[in-house]
Amino acid sequence: MRERAAGAKVAHLATVRPDGTPHVVPCCFVLDRDTIYSAIDAKSKSALKLQRLENLRRHSAAAVLVDHYDDDWAELWWVRADGSGRVIDHGEEHERAKSLLEGKYPQYRYVAIPGAVIAVAVERWRGWP
Amino acid sequence: MRERAAGAKVAHLATVRPDGTPHVVPCCFVLDRDTIYSAIDAKSKSALKLQRLENLRRHSAAAVLVDHYDDDWAELWWVRADGSGRVIDHGEEHERAKSLLEGKYPQYRYVAIPGAVIAVAVERWRGWP
Repeated sequence: MRERAAGAKVAHLATVRPDGTPHVVPCCFVLDRDTIYSAIDAKSKSALKLQRLENLRRHSAAAVLVDHYDDDWAELWWVRADGSGRVIDHGEEHERAKSLLEGKYPQYRYVAIPGAVIAVAVERWRGWP
Repeated sequence: MRERAAGAKVAHLATVRPDGTPHVVPCCFVLDRDTIYSAIDAKSKSALKLQRLENLRRHSAAAVLVDHYDDDWAELWWVRADGSGRVIDHGEEHERAKSLLEGKYPQYRYVAIPGAVIAVAVERWRGWP
């Protein structure tokens, strides 16, 4: 499950809003041991103050889903990491996460990561089938 | 946004578990006016009593995300429908939803829909960019 998740280019980050309703966005990410890092980068045009950050600052619980769709339904699969999310605004771990993301995504050569990084400490992996 | 969402083959359904943590799974779906239908079908092997159903029976709030990933980040987009979800176990709307799903997905010719159908009444569309 970890391998399948690590190789994917896009994940779906689910969090809970302050009012208790669910929120979900796609995100680029990198898996580093048992932590998933995702950055708020310059392609997020609506400023750097995003709903996902507000959510995690209130409710740390997060779920990160990676899935594969195929018209041949025998090929479908998904992997989900449930855990606890933190917002990292700067510092050593922020720099390290940026380096890992830049290593995985050549696109980060021209898309800056001026904002926060999200770290989800994975507590449980689930997969299907 | 509705057109982009309607044309996609897979969506990501986010709900909230009874304990308040987020849950997210990929799902096939069909958009019918302002309602998104998704079925629990026979490819869900782990019986028909799924977490997503338990969640919606407790907390009706749901978010349904459709997104497109591309290595060319200028092509990225996502659309999210936030709304209220219900579990439909049988009856006329259940039959209607099954017909719509069978119309969109030829795979349902050989994958049965023996279980519940989820209906999400869309209250708000959000999209990016």
